[in-house]
Order: sequence, then C-alpha cells, then structure tokens
Amino acid sequence: MKQNILDELVSCVGKGRASYAPEDLVAYSYDPFIEEHRPDIVVYPLSTEEVSAVMKVAYRESIPVVPRGSGTNLAGETVPVKGGIVLALSKMDKILEIDSRNRIAKLQPGVINFDFQQAVEKHGLMYPPDPSSWKMATMGGTVATNAGGPKTLKYGVTRDYLLGLRVILANGDVLKTGGVAIKNVTGYDLTRLICGSEGTLGIVTEMTVRLVPKPKGSRTIRADFPKLEDSSNAVADIIGEGIVPAGLEIMDKVVISAVEADTHMGLPLDVDAILIIEVDGEPAALQDQVSRIEGVLTKNNASGIVVAKDQAEAEKLWSARRAAFSVMARLRPNAVIEDATVPVSNLTLMINKTRKIALRHNVQIGVLAHAGDGNLHPVVLFDQRDQAELQRVDADTEEIFREALALGGTLSGEHGIGMAKARFLSMELDPVAMRVSKNIKSVLDPKNILNPGKFI
Amino acid sequence: MKQNILDELVSCVGKGRASYAPEDLVAYSYDPFIEEHRPDIVVYPLSTEEVSAVMKVAYRESIPVVPRGSGTNLAGETVPVKGGIVLALSKMDKILEIDSRNRIAKLQPGVINFDFQQAVEKHGLMYPPDPSSWKMATMGGTVATNAGGPKTLKYGVTRDYLLGLRVILANGDVLKTGGVAIKNVTGYDLTRLICGSEGTLGIVTEMTVRLVPKPKGSRTIRADFPKLEDSSNAVADIIGEGIVPAGLEIMDKVVISAVEADTHMGLPLDVDAILIIEVDGEPAALQDQVSRIEGVLTKNNASGIVVAKDQAEAEKLWSARRAAFSVMARLRPNAVIEDATVPVSNLTLMINKTRKIALRHNVQIGVLAHAGDGNLHPVVLFDQRDQAELQRVDADTEEIFREALALGGTLSGEHGIGMAKARFLSMELDPVAMRVSKNIKSVLDPKNILNPGKFI
Repeated sequence: MKQNILDELVSCVGKGRASYAPEDLVAYSYDPFIEEHRPDIVVYPLSTEEVSAVMKVAYRESIPVVPRGSGTNLAGETVPVKGGIVLALSKMDKILEIDSRNRIAKLQPGVINFDFQQAVEKHGLMYPPDPSSWKMATMGGTVATNAGGPKTLKYGVTRDYLLGLRVILANGDVLKTGGVAIKNVTGYDLTRLICGSEGTLGIVTEMTVRLVPKPKGSRTIRADFPKLEDSSNAVADIIGEGIVPAGLEIMDKVVISAVEADTHMGLPLDVDAILIIEVDGEPAALQDQVSRIEGVLTKNNASGIVVAKDQAEAEKLWSARRAAFSVMARLRPNAVIEDATVPVSNLTLMINKTRKIALRHNVQIGVLAHAGDGNLHPVVLFDQRDQAELQRVDADTEEIFREALALGGTLSGEHGIGMAKARFLSMELDPVAMRVSKNIKSVLDPKNILNPGKFI
Repeated sequence: MKQNILDELVSCVGKGRASYAPEDLVAYSYDPFIEEHRPDIVVYPLSTEEVSAVMKVAYRESIPVVPRGSGTNLAGETVPVKGGIVLALSKMDKILEIDSRNRIAKLQPGVINFDFQQAVEKHGLMYPPDPSSWKMATMGGTVATNAGGPKTLKYGVTRDYLLGLRVILANGDVLKTGGVAIKNVTGYDLTRLICGSEGTLGIVTEMTVRLVPKPKGSRTIRADFPKLEDSSNAVADIIGEGIVPAGLEIMDKVVISAVEADTHMGLPLDVDAILIIEVDGEPAALQDQVSRIEGVLTKNNASGIVVAKDQAEAEKLWSARRAAFSVMARLRPNAVIEDATVPVSNLTLMINKTRKIALRHNVQIGVLAHAGDGNLHPVVLFDQRDQAELQRVDADTEEIFREALALGGTLSGEHGIGMAKARFLSMELDPVAMRVSKNIKSVLDPKNILNPGKFI
C-alpha cells in the first residue's frame, strides 16, 4: 500500500488509532484458523463516522477491508487473505442503552458478549446467544457469524434477537436496517441479510437487540453414559418428551479426559460420554422436568445422574463445557473444531460415522455437541507441520461434511463458512443459490472489497 | 394479452387449471384492500414444475405475475395492479411431512394455517404463527407477509419458524434455501430475504418449518377497564413483571360493542377496554403467573377480572378477538385495519394519539392491539364512495403513521406494506435502505415482473 494512502487512512481515525508497524500487522494476520496473511494497516475506529471515512478511502482505492472483533471465530472469517485494511472494532465497546421496560438494548459492536450478558442481568433480563467464546467474543462478531451457543436450542440464535442495525456499506454509505419495534415487517429483511454475512456485505457499527426476562430458576444435570450411543439416544428422547432444555450438551470420553486433566473437577474417566442438561423457567415447573429427564436418562442406561446442588456447581459444569475446545486445543499444536449439523434424529448415526471416519483416516478427534439441535462439534487435533497428517485431516473433514449433508444436515450450524469451508460451499448450495448469493454480494459490494477471499 | 400467450400459459398447467373467463378474472381482481384491478389470466399450478413453467413464459414475455393464496392479506399485496398473471397457489395444499422426532414439517404453500395447526397438534406439537385470518390464510401467504398473530409476543413470527424454502425465481429457476437442520448458517440468509418480501422476489412452492412442543396447559384471563389508559398501562406492567404471555390483546369499546352485538357472549358494554391475556406452559407454573397478573390488573384499576373456567370458555374469548375485524368490517361499507407498531412503553400514548387523530379528522375508528408487542390495529370504518370521507381517512392514516414513527415505531408490525403503505415507505426507510432494497429487487427480478406496483 502506498504511503499516501496509509497516511490518509491514519487521518480517518483519531491519533494513535491506526498502525502499520510490523508487530501489529502480525498480530492481526491470524485467528483460530490455520491460515495467516498480513494486512497492510490496522485501524481502530471509535464511531460510525470513522468507519464510514475509512470505507470511503477503501472504496475509492479498491482496498480489501476485513472487519474484526476479538477474532474468536472458528472458520478463518477474520484472516486478511488479500491484505489491505483490518478494521478492528474492539474499541467501539459501549453499551449505549438498556431499556428494561421495552426489553431492548442498543450497543456498539466491540462490546464483549459476556459483559453484555452481565449488564442486562442486572436489569433482570437475559440476552440468550452465548457462544463458548463469550468471555472474549464481541457482539459485532456474533452478528457477523449469526452466533449460537448452548442456549440456542431453547432460545434461538443471534438473528432471532436483532431488531435493527447500523451498517456501513462498501462505499461508506450508512445503512439503517430495522428499528426498535419488536415487530417490524417494513421492507426487505436487510437486518437478517447482514447477520451471518461474515463481513462480506457491510460493517455493523451499532445494533439494537431484544432481550428476554431472565428465567427465575434453573437446574443443571450431569449424566454419565458407558456408551455414547445411549447418550445421544437420550437426547432425542428428551426432545421427544416435549421438554425444551436451555442446554443439552454431549462431551465424549476424549473431551472428558482433556477437561478433567485441566480442571480436576471429578468428571468420570471410565465412561464414553457425559450429557450436561439445563432446564430453566418458572421454579414451580422445574422439579417435574428434572424428574422426567431423570426417567429418560435411566431408561437410556445412564450409569450416573448428578443434579447440581447449587448455582456454583452448575456453573462449574458449564465452565468445563465452555473450556472444552481450548483445553483440547492444548493437546496438539493445532486444533480445528467443526460444526456440521444434522437433524437431531440422526445425531447418534452422525457421531458414530464421525468416529469411524476419523479412525479410518487415522485422525485424532474428540466429539462435543450442542446435542439438542444436532449441532456436532468434532474437535480435530493435529500438527500442521506434518504434511501427511494435514492431508489426512483434510480428507477426514471433507468426509464428515459429506456425511452431514447426506443425513439432511448442513456444513455449518453456527461457526460459518469463512475460509475454512469455502471450498465445500457448492456441496450444499446449488448453482442457483450460489448465483443469487453472488448477485446480492455484487450489488452490495461491487468492487469486492469487503472481506474478500471468503465464502462468497 | 395475446391469445397465443394465453394458450401457452394454459398449457403450462394441467387441464382445467387456468382461466381467463371474465367471472374468474373479476374474482381475482381484489382483496381486502380497497383497490381493484383485473388480471389477464389466473392459473392454478399443482407443482413446483408448473410454477416454473409459468414463470419461464412470464419472464420471456415480461408479463407481471402476482402470487396469491387466499388473498386475506390486508395491504393490497395481491391486487394485480399491472394485470398479467395471477398465480393462485391454493391448490398446492398438501402437508408433505410432519416429522415429530425432529419437530419439523414440510408443506406446500396452499395449506391453510389453521389446518396445519390442527395437523401438528395431533403430534403434540404447535406451529405458533397464527394470524387472525388463520382459518382462511394460506401458509404461503404467511411466508410472503412474515405473518404474526396473537402468539408472536411469546413465540415470534413466521420468519422465526422457517428452516428452508423452495422458491421459483422470476426467470423460472428453482432456488433452494436453507434445509432441514434447526441450526444453519451456511451462506446468506436467503430464507429470510424471501420471507416478508410479498411475492416481489420469488414464488414459494414448498417450505420446511420447525415446530415446538404444544404447551401442556394454558390459562386465559379477561380484564375489564373503565379507562383504556389503565388497560395499556397494565400491559406494560405485565411485561415489566417478567411474564411473557402467549397472548396479550386489547379491544376498545367500539370493538367490544361490535363483537358483543355479533356474538352475544356477554362482554361488558360499559367499559372503555378489555384485555385478553393468555399464559401457557407447564401447568405447575401457571397458577403463580395468573396470580401475579391478577395483581397487576387490580393495581391498574381493572373493574372486572374473569379467568376462563375451561378451554371452551377460553376459546370463545379468542374467537371473539379473532372475529373482531370482520365483525367491525360489517358496520360500514369499507374497513381498513392498520398495524402501526411502537415500543410497548409508548402503547398508551400511541392509542391516545390514534383516538385524538381520528376525532380531529372526524373518522370512525375502533382500536384493537396485539398489545404486548406494541402492535396496534386501528380499524378505520368508512364508505369509499364518499370522496370527502375517503380523503379524511387518508389524512388520518398518514398522521397515525407519522406518530408511530415519531414514537420509535414502524409502518407495519405484521401486515406488510403492499399497495396500502407504499407511498409511506420512504418515511421509514432512508434513501440508502431504499436504494439497497431496489438493487436487491433488481438482481432477483430484473424485468420487474414479480408483483409489480407494490412497495418496491
């Protein structure tokens, strides 16, 4: 990038909020995905106006722009593969308003998901989407990826909570979508077109979200299963029972032993899988649900059933689950977590197939799952410097996706496509869907400067 | 339209499933909105392939196409203002699959909403979006308008239940969006782009929806209020209490007396408003909620509180509410129901303003509202042959919309924009949003043949 353009970009934001020092460029050249590429400059805007100013220069000069929050995404969405500008939105971190009477909040994209959750809880409210990276992930990133989390089985994903967005378009124009009304069908649903578009259609600089009352109570259950198959059958039976848990997670033995080695919290090491189940809602109804769940677990051969005695015990269990990926990731130089998702009735089949595929390719995996919505998270461990192993991992991943699609599933339940799955996209989207998507991309980003080189 | 084109269109569908007889054209020239325009032909396809064949001819010849279910929409979405083809989807009325284990269903667009509700209930499941026209409205129409209904406060609107669509594009291509997995973030959210697009982007010929467990119990409460203001304050307080009712409706005295005259069900005629409140869920938790609601109602000066003693009594109350618009519509030659929506904290203010505006314009109105989500339904009664009255109604409507927008609201909570509100659209969408919307329309429908002359 020419010096005069670097200078102009620096002048778009306040003093000390842009850098092209090598150490900063290296810091923004990667995310949890295995590829790396250095940007030319990183800017830290503080306002919609500054983002717009940066985009105007980028548009005029056809410079690639990659928006980035904390970079916790898992599909390489924030790797600046074509160089250019990294637009780091982490300093736009203000909660602008929490309106408890209308149960809505307005905030900037750099607010951390966990911090936002804590802030709304003080008003007796809850913002459900809670990716496992919640203590680091920015709200803007959750919009860009339409993030889910354990609670999505009962409460839905990020897009279900968006009321309106402020979005900077490729040419710097400011687009306002939606509003603050809970119901709004005026015009095309641009809010949800932007949500999940992984920064390829616009840059979100403000969001209005709806909130729900914080449940008055919750109960968390851990169930141990000598056979993983029994645990996933239990999941389907809990769903079939007409219960909608607030969380319904599987960890297989590989994951359990990694978590136990890290936490020493007393997880059983002699079982094939554990389930973590949470129900929430009106306290008067919880005991009945717990009893019915215990019945299902027993019927499906659970060897142990532990109902958390208090909130602290429940939180310990959930922390273990949330930490599972990072704990696993320490076991080998590299770890990739996939999120192929199938209809829940195919969960057992898909887990079995995933394990068999890994065995056949001699690949080391552990299986986590947001089991209640069929959202598998096979964690694949490897060393990318070992070319032979890397090839085996690639072959393993592709076969997992083929199986998921064959079982009525999707490439991605919640992580997105990014770079990681771009080459698989046409396995799921037919040529008409690909063409329509490209056409939409081309009218919103005619110069292809918004996060280029990703899924579209 | 030339005879050879008419003949070709007739040949696109099976024998006896197309007509250009004047009596059929008249039947498809109007809907509940006040404008009328005759199409050139109406076709009744039975399959995706037939719809595609019709669209190929329409595209080649640049003929306008208006998709139509039962025509119960309230914003003139199905009036064929530019003539051409009415694509009547009412005969594509098969429920293709109800998969209770995965809680999903596949169906054709002509299935009636109520029939679908009944069908899934047999499996212990519920499909929440339930517009008041549910006994006539088609599921395809609910997708085209992103329909809501009383249950949407707790359960969300149509778009929240769509997993995947089959859509015929302007050129006859078949687009598949989404899938059957509950969580799916692969590619842009084309499903929700189509939902609510009022037939301007494509024709839905098949849909996959998710279902929820049918609540195990419910309680319905009627509360009478000498002052309407107290009733809307009670609404805000119920929400503020952290309760999320499955329904929370206001009817003002004009509506009450019209409904009572029709049903003789014993509604009080000496009050200013009644609230209908439904809570549902686990039976063990319902009584506590009912008690808390009674407390709020009493605090807000309810003069009478009646808890329905059984399901029959509850249904009677709901039938009255659902019938309110059609009962009102009989009072004068014409009736228009608006759906301006505001944040719930502005509900009282908006109702008061609506009444004052009507008084000032000497316009006859009654006010209904899905009160819990701030979704007002002022029913405006008039005689369109009386030009002076029609002008007063127009002025009244415009002022209602201006007020709703000034109070942080939207032109439409659930009915859509169609013809009725097209001229107001730029009051809500700024030039950037209008341009983006038009650009999206132009890539999906470059010849502007899909429901032309409507909001876009």
